[in-house]
Amino acid sequence: MIEEKSLYKTAKDLNVAQIDSSNTVFHRSPVNNVRLGKLNIRGKTAKTPLFMPVATRGTVRALTPSQLKEIGFEMILSNTYHLHERPGEEVIDKLGGLHKFMNWDGLILTDSGGYQVFSLSSHRKITDEGVFFRSVLDGKEIYLTPEKVLHIQKKLNTNIAIFLDECPEYPCNARREEESLIRTLKFAERSIKVERNPGQLFFGVVQGGMNFKLRQECAQALLSLGVDGLAIGGLSMGEDSSLTREVLAATLEVIPEDKPRYLMGAGSDILTYIKMGIDMFDSVFPTRLARHASAFLYNGERINISNKRFKEDASPLDEGCDCYACRNFSRAYIRHLFLCDEILGKTLLSIHNLTVLFKTVNALNS
Amino acid sequence: MIEEKSLYKTAKDLNVAQIDSSNTVFHRSPVNNVRLGKLNIRGKTAKTPLFMPVATRGTVRALTPSQLKEIGFEMILSNTYHLHERPGEEVIDKLGGLHKFMNWDGLILTDSGGYQVFSLSSHRKITDEGVFFRSVLDGKEIYLTPEKVLHIQKKLNTNIAIFLDECPEYPCNARREEESLIRTLKFAERSIKVERNPGQLFFGVVQGGMNFKLRQECAQALLSLGVDGLAIGGLSMGEDSSLTREVLAATLEVIPEDKPRYLMGAGSDILTYIKMGIDMFDSVFPTRLARHASAFLYNGERINISNKRFKEDASPLDEGCDCYACRNFSRAYIRHLFLCDEILGKTLLSIHNLTVLFKTVNALNS
Repeated sequence: MIEEKSLYKTAKDLNVAQIDSSNTVFHRSPVNNVRLGKLNIRGKTAKTPLFMPVATRGTVRALTPSQLKEIGFEMILSNTYHLHERPGEEVIDKLGGLHKFMNWDGLILTDSGGYQVFSLSSHRKITDEGVFFRSVLDGKEIYLTPEKVLHIQKKLNTNIAIFLDECPEYPCNARREEESLIRTLKFAERSIKVERNPGQLFFGVVQGGMNFKLRQECAQALLSLGVDGLAIGGLSMGEDSSLTREVLAATLEVIPEDKPRYLMGAGSDILTYIKMGIDMFDSVFPTRLARHASAFLYNGERINISNKRFKEDASPLDEGCDCYACRNFSRAYIRHLFLCDEILGKTLLSIHNLTVLFKTVNALNS
Repeated sequence: MIEEKSLYKTAKDLNVAQIDSSNTVFHRSPVNNVRLGKLNIRGKTAKTPLFMPVATRGTVRALTPSQLKEIGFEMILSNTYHLHERPGEEVIDKLGGLHKFMNWDGLILTDSGGYQVFSLSSHRKITDEGVFFRSVLDGKEIYLTPEKVLHIQKKLNTNIAIFLDECPEYPCNARREEESLIRTLKFAERSIKVERNPGQLFFGVVQGGMNFKLRQECAQALLSLGVDGLAIGGLSMGEDSSLTREVLAATLEVIPEDKPRYLMGAGSDILTYIKMGIDMFDSVFPTRLARHASAFLYNGERINISNKRFKEDASPLDEGCDCYACRNFSRAYIRHLFLCDEILGKTLLSIHNLTVLFKTVNALNS
């Protein structure tokens, strides 16, 4: 499909120092064949499979870092585009990097802004050079290039930096799938050459729409560039979940066992994807739904705690849960908080939903 | 001034069992002559002088009970009127009382709804029988009587219940001052006869506008009814602070040393009032100002953390503070949270402001 084989330059061709692969260790569980692993980065460790709570602007909404640690999280995700926009990477750098700025001593992965290329598509223009955004905050022009997003992530001093990519809309035609893939790979070639902080890992983003072959070519091209891990983007865009699984399976076929695989933005069907071989997840779902009164149960159901049937319900959100919310508060109380629009309601449900996700994933990796 | 001396019935006349005064112990500090004390209620203790964070609807806004305990608070305030309106005292009773409902194992004082008689004056009609409110939530009619507010507080099972009173507007003429005082005392006479939970303390509210003599008569009348303590209402209504102090001093003259004195709704000049002999305070100020980006300093100043000058300020809110916010976050980070309208900003400033108030008061009582 891709004519220009010159895209497939290797790390060797590009004269790039590769990261020591001892950063990441994976094996298959003898019990259930699930991939179990450890990300070891700059003396910090996170067990995989793992779910990353989303701290878009340097805070997981409605929660303190202490509350996140109490749940057990070892790694969170933040966003390069949004932090560049406000407060700016220079400010964060002066204050000692993102870990210190937000008081998070676990690992941090930063998304590149590639997703904003998609989600803010009415506010941006993309070329082979980079992406122009019109800030929705103040109309200011923001110009991101593959190099610049990595410079920003260097200043943020996060543990895993993601390359700038182009995520095509879904559905789109074959030409768009290929065009965005070629651009993603051109961006990746420039990205791999950028200087990084010691021990910072570089992940490329696999695009290629719903075309299995393009997906595989993209993954192989990124691997040949010497990326430390692969982020799989452009899925869960509204396509049938069976198609998501098929595209994912085809992609995973070409990724060696020693490379971490991060499925971007998947907030549901996580156990299925873990069994398929995915190590890392992130999603705003658990916290966003929490702020809208929706509580996760361990059986996979969700309840809206504002419902009148919980008015006098003395039981916790989920009987089997030992999170701070379930140890100390009834459904009736949390309902009351939501009816009164009290912040504590959002905090308690966020703690609970993240706990459900954490424990569900953690049951496999411990 | 008051013609009807029949108002001054004593507890004995009314055949009311009085509370054991060993509930409260006060002495004067040998160091600075400040009143130091202990409220001992149902096996729970709170040292005085004390400041009560306000949990109007059963939650101190933006904070968990754990965060309040970590600061050191032993007593909080909640509101009878608002909890009656939503979720209703029957619900809270079924769920084991307000302590269990909101997971607060310290002491709780409930305001009576008397202040809402004033603050919701466009939505209510007051007679010698009681007060009709039109709920601002749903237009439903709410009828409160002196007996009913105590029945509600019995169901909430709080530690200190406050009588229904009438708080006159400021300024008002002599007739209004006297009229509202007479009604407050008539309400009090009915209140003292109401059955209470074992060990629940009853506080009457001293009204009488800015008239020293009325204030003293009111306090004496309440004391003769056998109240366990006195709440002083109707001050800090916009009058000069020198007048506040004069009215307060006149009132305190007639209150014996063994009775706790609670100055309602005072959020500033607390040290002055403590030196005058006040034991208990509440105010929404520290948390309300926190939610509007205003941080307290120990020197009595306030800073608005949204200010641009804090953009790169790596220092904590106050160098001398050891609260969770100051131990872990910079002014620059908290500013960023406010600019992004992130909930964590409100939480951190609420923790900080309450800590400043707690420590300022606690420096006197430990």
